Amino acid sequence: MENVGTALAEMTLPQTSPLAGEPIDRADAERLASVLKALADPARLRLLSLIQSAPDGEACVCDLTAPLGLSQPTVSHHLRILTEAGLLEREKRGVWAFYRLVPSAIGTIADLLTPPRKRATKKAPR
Amino acid sequence: MENVGTALAEMTLPQTSPLAGEPIDRADAERLASVLKALADPARLRLLSLIQSAPDGEACVCDLTAPLGLSQPTVSHHLRILTEAGLLEREKRGVWAFYRLVPSAIGTIADLLTPPRKRATKKAPR
Repeated sequence: MENVGTALAEMTLPQTSPLAGEPIDRADAERLASVLKALADPARLRLLSLIQSAPDGEACVCDLTAPLGLSQPTVSHHLRILTEAGLLEREKRGVWAFYRLVPSAIGTIADLLTPPRKRATKKAPR
Repeated sequence: MENVGTALAEMTLPQTSPLAGEPIDRADAERLASVLKALADPARLRLLSLIQSAPDGEACVCDLTAPLGLSQPTVSHHLRILTEAGLLEREKRGVWAFYRLVPSAIGTIADLLTPPRKRATKKAPR
């Protein structure tokens, strides 16, 4: 359970957006859905939020249990899901593991979900 | 089951992003998670994709069963979840209901997930 965190790099998110005007294929839809499933949980959204707003943008389990009001095993479970989805990266230092966001991963999801009408304003046809 | 589709308008998505540098509260996290759950399914992502790329950006169940290889009740079930989440709007015309994307809803989710580093490039501190 230690060597997780490279799932997203290995799996690569779809290059095409479900909203880009061309249907995405089944495999791309499955990859994107699996990352969205990791995001689609209130405790995990709050964890991302707390880590993002922590000093230096990183936090360990010890920082996160009290603000969430959840046990350490539960927080660790959610952190593992986010790490396996490639949304967090994990670094062990001493007895604690520290977590930080992988901004490129979340940025990619945001781009994939940006409706074409919004994107079109950036490079509208003449 | 007919009067759905206004869920998102009634519920309103959080104004703050989980990635905006300030922790989102429990209620906002629950609202955002419920919309992400509706998105986090391969069949539903493909449905959004097919509807978006259809002529006039709209489609009825009758257009969607064959490309997805799913039964009409299954497609209707997924369309209902997307409509209840406020991601699709539904208009009954004759015997068929037609569905189209609610771009503002999906755009809001994309904005909420856009990492601050990306946004910061627009107004970087000197």
